[in-house]
This record gives sequence, C-alpha cells and structure tokens, in this order.
Amino acid sequence: MNRRLAVVGGDAAGMSAAANARRRDPDATIVVFDRGQRTSYSACGIPYYLGDLVSDIERLVARSPEEHRQAGIDVRLGHEVLGVDLDAGRLTVRDGGDGGGESLQPFDELVIATGARAVAPDLPGAEALEPVRTLDAAERLRSQLQAAGERAVVIGGGYIGVEMAEALVRRGLEVTLVDMADQLFAALDADMAREVQQAAEGVGIRVLLGLSVQEVSLGADGRPRSVLTSDGELGADHVILATGVRPDVEVAQDAGLEVGQTGALSVDDGQRCTVGGGLAESVFAAGDCVESRHRLLHRPVNIQLGTHANKQGRIAGVNATGGDLHFPGVIGTAISRVCQREIARTGLNEREAAEAGLEVVAETISSTTRAGYLADGDTLTVKVVAERGSGRLLGAQIVGAPTAGKRIDAVALAIWNGMTVEELQWADLAYAPPVSPVLDPILVAARAVAKRV
Amino acid sequence: MNRRLAVVGGDAAGMSAAANARRRDPDATIVVFDRGQRTSYSACGIPYYLGDLVSDIERLVARSPEEHRQAGIDVRLGHEVLGVDLDAGRLTVRDGGDGGGESLQPFDELVIATGARAVAPDLPGAEALEPVRTLDAAERLRSQLQAAGERAVVIGGGYIGVEMAEALVRRGLEVTLVDMADQLFAALDADMAREVQQAAEGVGIRVLLGLSVQEVSLGADGRPRSVLTSDGELGADHVILATGVRPDVEVAQDAGLEVGQTGALSVDDGQRCTVGGGLAESVFAAGDCVESRHRLLHRPVNIQLGTHANKQGRIAGVNATGGDLHFPGVIGTAISRVCQREIARTGLNEREAAEAGLEVVAETISSTTRAGYLADGDTLTVKVVAERGSGRLLGAQIVGAPTAGKRIDAVALAIWNGMTVEELQWADLAYAPPVSPVLDPILVAARAVAKRV
Repeated sequence: MNRRLAVVGGDAAGMSAAANARRRDPDATIVVFDRGQRTSYSACGIPYYLGDLVSDIERLVARSPEEHRQAGIDVRLGHEVLGVDLDAGRLTVRDGGDGGGESLQPFDELVIATGARAVAPDLPGAEALEPVRTLDAAERLRSQLQAAGERAVVIGGGYIGVEMAEALVRRGLEVTLVDMADQLFAALDADMAREVQQAAEGVGIRVLLGLSVQEVSLGADGRPRSVLTSDGELGADHVILATGVRPDVEVAQDAGLEVGQTGALSVDDGQRCTVGGGLAESVFAAGDCVESRHRLLHRPVNIQLGTHANKQGRIAGVNATGGDLHFPGVIGTAISRVCQREIARTGLNEREAAEAGLEVVAETISSTTRAGYLADGDTLTVKVVAERGSGRLLGAQIVGAPTAGKRIDAVALAIWNGMTVEELQWADLAYAPPVSPVLDPILVAARAVAKRV
Repeated sequence: MNRRLAVVGGDAAGMSAAANARRRDPDATIVVFDRGQRTSYSACGIPYYLGDLVSDIERLVARSPEEHRQAGIDVRLGHEVLGVDLDAGRLTVRDGGDGGGESLQPFDELVIATGARAVAPDLPGAEALEPVRTLDAAERLRSQLQAAGERAVVIGGGYIGVEMAEALVRRGLEVTLVDMADQLFAALDADMAREVQQAAEGVGIRVLLGLSVQEVSLGADGRPRSVLTSDGELGADHVILATGVRPDVEVAQDAGLEVGQTGALSVDDGQRCTVGGGLAESVFAAGDCVESRHRLLHRPVNIQLGTHANKQGRIAGVNATGGDLHFPGVIGTAISRVCQREIARTGLNEREAAEAGLEVVAETISSTTRAGYLADGDTLTVKVVAERGSGRLLGAQIVGAPTAGKRIDAVALAIWNGMTVEELQWADLAYAPPVSPVLDPILVAARAVAKRV
C-alpha cells in the first residue's frame, strides 16, 4: 500500500517536509493540516509589512496552498489537529470550515511542525493584546495602526521588538520600547547592545530599559490606553508584545512524545521524535517546535529561525520517506537589520560562554566596511570571543553599517570547523577598497584576541 | 650592537615589516628605502581617485612618511636600491635627491618588498603610455583626462581594466575596453564573466573581446590618437594599459636570491628568501614580489593583493626580529565592485581545477541578496565547484548586487577547512529577510552540487 504521510503545520518546516517527501515518493499520499489559512509564509517578514516596505501581504507567502496542491500535496487549511494516537497511527482533526467536524486521519509517517506560540506576559490587560505571529494578525494590527492614535509602546527589546519599533516609527508613530533588562538584544553582550540602542534612539525610538511592565490599561472599547511600568505610566494607543515565544508542543506531548529541558520536542539528528526513552521510528518533528543540538554547548537548544525550520523540514521529509539525512546542529548564528545598522552574532557571546563554564578572552575592534578613503560613516564594530589557553574561537558579534552583518558567516564557518583565533587571523578573505579595509575587520579582531590568548 | 634592519620598498609589505619590527625591537635601527615619494599607499584605490570618488589623492595614503618617522622608522624617499651584497650585508643605494649620490648601506637583516611593475605589451606606441601603478602616475593621468578629449581605450579586461573603465565612464568619457580573450575577468569562468560584461555594458562601457591590439598610434605631441586592433581602428584620446604586472625582482635576483616558476621570489612560510638551494636566514621578502603557497594547488603562486602584502610584511618584520610566525598560504580569494555589481571568487574556478587535473562538478544558481519580497533587483549568481567523488569544496564565484561579494568569505573559510559541499549545505549561516533569503544562496549552491557529486 502507498505510504500515508501526515504533516501537522503548513509553514516553513511542514511544507519543506511535505515537498521533499513528495519529490522522493511519487506514490505517497501526503496530507498537511494547518489551522490557519496560508502555507509557507514568512512570519519574519511581518515587520517589513507593518513598516510599509512590503505593500501586499501575499508577497510574504513563498508558496501558496494552490501551488503546493498542484505539486501533489493535499493541503487542508482551517484544520486543527487535536490529538495524535501514535499506536493506532491516527490524528484527530477538527475542520474549522462550514459543516466541518472532527475526523480521524490515518498516517504511516508523521511530521510535527507546529511551530511556536507567543508567550503572553502575566500582566493585567495583556490578554487583550493579540500576538502578531500570523499574517492574519499582522493585517489586523495594520488596520488598527491606520485607524487609532499616534502613541505606541513595544514591550520586549529583542530582535522582533526592535524590528517592530522601527516599523512603527517608519509609519510615523511615536514609539517607546520597554524592556526589563538593562540592555536591548539579549543575544549580544551589553557593550555591543549599546550600539544598537544608540541606533534605535537615532531613528527616534524612545528606549526605556530596566523597567518592568505592570499593567496594560484598557479603555471601555477594549483598546489600550496606557502601559503602567515600574517607573510610571506611558500613554499608549497601541501596545505590541514582543516578549518571546515558546514551542507549541501540547498535542505532541499529550501523545507521549518527549519534550526536553528547553520545552521543545526532543529529536535525534534525523529529526526523529523520542517516545518512552527511545526513538519514534516513524514520527518526525522540525522547526520552531524542536530542539537542536548546539555544537559548542553540546546540549539541546531551541532556536526559532526559518532557516533551521527549512533545513530540518527537508530532513524530516526525506527521512520519513526512507532517506537518511542528518542535521549537524546549530551554533547560534543570527542577524537583524534595524535602524540602519546590521546586527549579527554567531557562537557564544561572553555571557553565554561564562554560563557554560568556559574561560574566555574577548576583544572588540572598530573598523569600517570599506577602505577608509571610501568609508563615509560606514563603520562597524566586531567582537570576537575565544577560549583562554587554547585560543579556540567561540563566538563573534558584529554591529555596523549595511553590509557589516553577513560577514558573520565567515566567523560561523570558522567556528563550525573548530578554528583558533591564531589560525583565523591569517585566512584568505576578500579585499577590495569598496568592500573592505586592507585587513578585514574579522581578521583584525581575531588577531587582537590571539595576542591575549 | 643594535640590529640594523633594512627594508627595500615603502608600500604595504615593506612598511608592515618595518612597523612590526619597530614594535618588537625598540633598539634596532630600521631604515626603509623607496624610490618614490610616498609610503603605505593604496594602489588599488587609484581607480576611485580617477573616478572622483576620492577627491584628495593623499587620502589613499594610509600612513605618511612623517608618521612612520615619528614611530621611529628611518624612511628614505627618492632612494633607489641598485644592488644587494648578501655576503657583505650591504645595499648600494642611489639617492635621487639634489646632491645625492650612491652610498653603501649596511644591514644585518633585510626585507625585500619591491612589489610589481606593469608589463608593457610588446606593441608599437605602448612605450609612450605610462603605467598607472603609483599615485604620482595617477595624478598625471587625471590631469591628462581633464585636459584632452573624450575617447578612452582601456587595454586589458581584468579587475583593474574594468575598474579603470568604470572610473573613466564616471568622468563622462566614451570608453572602449579591449581584451584579447573571449571574456572579461579571466579569474572567473566564462559563464560568470558574461554577467560582468553585461554590467559593464550596462553602465556604458563598450566591450570588445577576442581582439588583439596591434599598435597605439601616437600624434606628433606623443599623445595617443588611435588604437589599431585586429578588427579595425579605435579613435583614442587616452589609452590605459591594464595588461598585468610582474614581480619586481631584478635587484634581488642579481644578488643571488632565487626566483620561482612564477617569476616571483621563492620564500618559505616564514617569508625567508632562498639562496643557493637553502634558506637565506636573514633575508626576507613579502608582498607582490614573492610567491605564496596555494593551499589547494600545493604549489607556489604569485598573487598581488594588498591584504597578502600586509600579512606577509608583518611576518617578515616579526621574523627578522627573532619571531616565529608562519604564513599559511592563499586560496585565491579576490573581489571587486564594478558597474554596480560585486564580483568575487575563492579557491579554483572550473578552468583552474581542470588545469590542475581535478575532476569537478559545478553548479550555478540564481538567487537574491534579500528575501524575495524585499529584493528589488538585488539578484546574485553563485557558482560552486567541488571535486567529483569526494565532494570536496574547491571553489566558488559570486556575481551580484551590492552585498553579494563579501559572502565569498564564508566559502573561503569552508575551503580553508577542507569542507565538502555535503557538509556546507547544512551550515548555520545568518538569516533575516533584509540580508538573505531563508536558505542562503551559498547553501543552495552547495546543495545543488552535493546532489551531483
């Protein structure tokens, strides 16, 4: 009999799994269930839609349900998976459409790609704020932004919080960004994060750090009126929550699949789920809802990024159809472009290295993205972190002018391959005056660290 | 007695050697001889000066003679080294200044950093064209460009030829670029070079390929009037030669130092010269005049780049003062930004791999530098070359919109570390919509090759 593959979740990981399975096994029946109305969309593109850099929200859809269906994938939208019976090989699915009801859907192989949900902070009023995780929610928020007043408060100063704050500034709103921590971008060390703060303030974002939010006051219409913080009240016509997300694992966990310390599903490097202490041979998971092995920390982490989702989905889809691919893990590479600065990191920052019990040497250097005589304010700052003694490269952070960010990939591959800073400083990186000083800033930073290892 | 270190040549390699030696040995006497009038200047910046992107030529000087002197380096400009007596430890130097003459200058350690000279092609009239290798020559050319007519012919379609042609277009000249080969940028494979040609033509450069130049016709004033090619005559008020350079090794070779197959000085990885089949313990060389070991070809190559000169100069200066640094070699990374495109390469292209007797698999993919919904013509093309069978990554070429080029560094470090395309396709590279599609183009290209290995 033909293989029946069920996929729960129709975004990056799920559709990558379905598409790869489709190519490998032309005879399989492949069904994707998603409770929403779209497939393969870029949630990370939402700030650009809100900031009017993308006018048509459908452009955030990489591949529509119709396109997937034409490729032979049975995409069922508005279908929520309520339960998984691993022994029987059956899903309980509720069809949200007219006349829909609950049905049982059989599977031989299963891919779980349920993603993550926003974590609503535990404050009065927060329950009235819709998380902006889906394109539908983004459309609703954009309408509200056009309708109501001028003052916006963004709660949470990570990547998404700053991206959202910038989008609102671009729309002409007065934006206050509030975070409990003493710095923006917890993914960076505090010294590097200060540059991001300056850039955010430079485009007109008011940044308030070290403040706890105590309440979101709502008007009679259920819309925000103000945000009460540990340091007073902030008038607010709009309140955006960017306080993080957690893996959406309830259905999988109820079915007996194991969840690790991070709160995400525990999988092996073939994206196979764990059940009863062993591997669930025919159940796979991928994307924001799973753990990945961190190659430097040697423990599982949960990092929510479309690029991992895409790769892991491919592995799940290939392995669910008899293949044998392996996900080699992650090293915490991330990037953002906000407020005319690019911000990137890979490996461990100083704080993370210390938490992992590693003794480190770190150096921060200032340079330019071009030769000095062509650099017109095109500055960048590079911080490199290495293990004391061995000189093993552990991490890097970059904050700088456009084109600064993707330079992190070179460091990522140096870390990936276990290079030392001593070795890295001599590497053959590309030089020409319009794109680099004669000594690449990464090499200069590596050299500065190598001197002190 | 204090160490006497002599350095021949005051550009990147020589001054890097002098400055590093100065820091390591405060008691040494360090003398740098240069026949020109400047130190530490960026010859690679000349096209940007000619194209009016840099208005003051002194901005191309990274460090002036006065600055070096203040750091305790005895810089002697207008001094040409005519001979080296290795046994006696003496240079014969001609002082080009008023009242100057020849003198003998003793040394304990010697660093040769004589760079490269333009190769004048063997054609009638070419002898009247001054190579544009120095800032003085660049100033003279700029004056001529302002004075004389509108029609320029650039002979030679490598990096420098195209950079020069673009600079002249920027000044409003009618520019024809001529090359004997069937493609521009011999450093790229022909398929990639076609994109560069389109970009060059797109900014208004007339590109004529497969033409040999037979004569530069000069007027009675000694200025060019036309260029005679195998396909007719081109009217020319200005003719720029960009037909390559060769290492300037005459004095060193006359002294008995060995020159390798490439025509450059043969050195070990400590930048020590070779003499009589052995190492010359106290004679070092660095920069455009030396050979470097190619890590993939396992043979010496001569690559003229400021970034290598800088690193090798450091090694020469450190080792000449008792240190022990090693240059790990090169892999042929190079980049340029011309005609609104960035062009980069690393490792071996298909042609070079074939010449080295390697059987290869190559794939070329088209992508964008940003997520599709933010990419407004920000396209790039990536070609990846791997060894058939093993899948060992051998090289990559990128042609694309601004920000495309420096992505080559990630591939450079993958090659540096001996990765396969199979491994590279899973690497943790940075993703965010403004700077990358969800699957990085390099990973996509690696995957395409991995499928066929």
